[in-house]
Amino acid sequence: MVAGVIPPNAPVAVAGVRVGTACAGIRRTDRDDIALFELASGTTCAAVFTRNAFCAAPVIAARRHLQHGAARYLLVNSGNANAGTGERGLADALATCAIVARLGGCAAEQVLPFSTGVIGQRLPLERFCDAVPRAFAGLHADGWAAAATAIMTTDTVAKAKSITVSVKAEPVTVTGIAKGAGMIRPDMATMLCFLATDAWVAADVLPKLLAAAVEASFNRITVDGDTSTNDACLVAATGQASAARVTAVNSEAGAALQAALSEVCGFLAEAIVRDGEGASKFIRVLVDGGRNEGECLAVAYAVAQSPLVKTALFACDANWGRILAAVGRVGRDDLDIHKVRVALNGVRIVEGGGRAADYCEEAGQAAVRSSDIAIHISLGVGTARAQVLTCDLSFDYVRINAEYRT
Amino acid sequence: MVAGVIPPNAPVAVAGVRVGTACAGIRRTDRDDIALFELASGTTCAAVFTRNAFCAAPVIAARRHLQHGAARYLLVNSGNANAGTGERGLADALATCAIVARLGGCAAEQVLPFSTGVIGQRLPLERFCDAVPRAFAGLHADGWAAAATAIMTTDTVAKAKSITVSVKAEPVTVTGIAKGAGMIRPDMATMLCFLATDAWVAADVLPKLLAAAVEASFNRITVDGDTSTNDACLVAATGQASAARVTAVNSEAGAALQAALSEVCGFLAEAIVRDGEGASKFIRVLVDGGRNEGECLAVAYAVAQSPLVKTALFACDANWGRILAAVGRVGRDDLDIHKVRVALNGVRIVEGGGRAADYCEEAGQAAVRSSDIAIHISLGVGTARAQVLTCDLSFDYVRINAEYRT
Repeated sequence: MVAGVIPPNAPVAVAGVRVGTACAGIRRTDRDDIALFELASGTTCAAVFTRNAFCAAPVIAARRHLQHGAARYLLVNSGNANAGTGERGLADALATCAIVARLGGCAAEQVLPFSTGVIGQRLPLERFCDAVPRAFAGLHADGWAAAATAIMTTDTVAKAKSITVSVKAEPVTVTGIAKGAGMIRPDMATMLCFLATDAWVAADVLPKLLAAAVEASFNRITVDGDTSTNDACLVAATGQASAARVTAVNSEAGAALQAALSEVCGFLAEAIVRDGEGASKFIRVLVDGGRNEGECLAVAYAVAQSPLVKTALFACDANWGRILAAVGRVGRDDLDIHKVRVALNGVRIVEGGGRAADYCEEAGQAAVRSSDIAIHISLGVGTARAQVLTCDLSFDYVRINAEYRT
Repeated sequence: MVAGVIPPNAPVAVAGVRVGTACAGIRRTDRDDIALFELASGTTCAAVFTRNAFCAAPVIAARRHLQHGAARYLLVNSGNANAGTGERGLADALATCAIVARLGGCAAEQVLPFSTGVIGQRLPLERFCDAVPRAFAGLHADGWAAAATAIMTTDTVAKAKSITVSVKAEPVTVTGIAKGAGMIRPDMATMLCFLATDAWVAADVLPKLLAAAVEASFNRITVDGDTSTNDACLVAATGQASAARVTAVNSEAGAALQAALSEVCGFLAEAIVRDGEGASKFIRVLVDGGRNEGECLAVAYAVAQSPLVKTALFACDANWGRILAAVGRVGRDDLDIHKVRVALNGVRIVEGGGRAADYCEEAGQAAVRSSDIAIHISLGVGTARAQVLTCDLSFDYVRINAEYRT
């Protein structure tokens, strides 16, 4: 979390959820790398997963078990993604579910597995046999903060957020934790993110609330354009705040819970970008004036994923020509370059396809020295808009990813 | 040119073409940065240009002048791209054409301007007034090698290639020079590339020969995924080898010239990738077994542009999980992962969605220690294939692009 600081938000316990952690020593022996969530009976779950065709074994297993319904446990490990491991990997993931089921007295299908870490290595099952019982023994309501740390890989800070809102006059808590710093360009879900609320939410409503929250948060960030094989984002509604019943998306209660869920996801998504591998700057790319959101998004991603824009900002260089080049390679013949405007942190730089008349290099350089940079691009042809969050490309990104397996 | 060495190929003179260079001191004062090509009367030209909407002023001018026909001079400068400079930039580009026209006794429309370098700064016209006459005075048949050096920006080596073939029993020369090391992901043309042949080629045939050569060479490379604002590739056919007349693409003469042109373009495209900014490895991504070429190309580009794949190879790490993740994010639901195979320099690594049974890490690590790496991905569902050339992502890429304007 070099690119500006999001103060760690101490996660608030959610009635109906207990969390335990343990050190299994999967890759590191100096901190916990297993997190176990216990969900009270009657909890409703919804989740979105990566659309990467090479999705990991735990993604396949979790998706399958989620359809079974009545999930009671989430088992998460860091240090090993159990991806690219074929049928054996799937058997391993199911075996970890069986370990939890035996301890919890439930069916293996009521356990959802999640993994993050190195791709292509077998899960060390024997370490799960030893560590999972310890995590189980340590289950308690205030285990969220420890879990936020246990699921980290190249993250430098834990990411957690809680919000309390009133739903039908009853206070409701939404708490979420997430991990992710590299291989971040979520496609429909993202990284790992675990959310819970004590509201009661109808089973057909919860996926809709989650989808809306994810679309505007995790699906609008990129660190390096690479979509992970293990992305997953899950929300559990325990229903322990019994009066707070959400039976429809388009209701006052639905809107209140949607707002809380979206705010928690938005916070965690921004925290992931600020903790992007090697990040020294947090960059918000806002594109407006487009004919439709898709056009704005394409331009925003082209700029947010341009290695040339990202290295220039790393160097505090207001090299706006690279921004124009990225915009222009998306827009092609459709773009009216004479209507395009670009501003960096409020400093107007480009107008009419070239440098703004009142722009001076000094103002641009001053703008990009900030650790938070807003690139505002106006296409000037419509009213649609879109925003993508990203970070710069630094020596440390290369170092972290060159050294990752060594 | 860190990523393996392509021996500099001394460019052979082409009858009907004279080349001169000079130092205008646009950004550097220690070497020539202006190249002037004189084409004999009767020469036919064809060119392809960037499709970036923010194309540079010289691209607009050259495209316009090319339609006028009867081009007699090409004026190239490095150090300043004259892009993002609006109407003033276009006026500046036309002014440089006028300087050449006055010296050469032709119309300004018979001069095609080309620029490469920093985006967003005005061209220093006064330096052209001084330097162009010196380049003009120095015009001679053997100026190609000096021109190959004069057009360099972040290139570390000059790129030139000549081939002699027999067309209708007459020896014909094809000579080309190119520059480019960063902002390389050509879309329909690329970087700067100047080709000439002494064959006579019909005006409607030359663009077709060029398009075919470019599509298979410059349109199959990427350094950083960023498409330049100034890309241009031009071929001039002087017709001085008077018997070597190419009047149709689908003729023996057309095929012979096409092969020569394609080989020169292929050589120069590979040279650009080997000299990619910060490159320590040359990477050939070959995808076969796809249903169509587009599918194969999309997979090849996803791998070739993955920062995670590129940093792993920089570190000589056979992190094949990252290759799978890149393949999987393109293929999505369409991909049958159980049919995908991956090999690195002939070492079979992935089969059936996971690690090949006979793969060991040592063999993979040995394969990626080479400076030339072939990533061979078989999709297993068809007969189409495509190849993309790229390089790794190193500390030096970040350094070069962080320091570019400082």
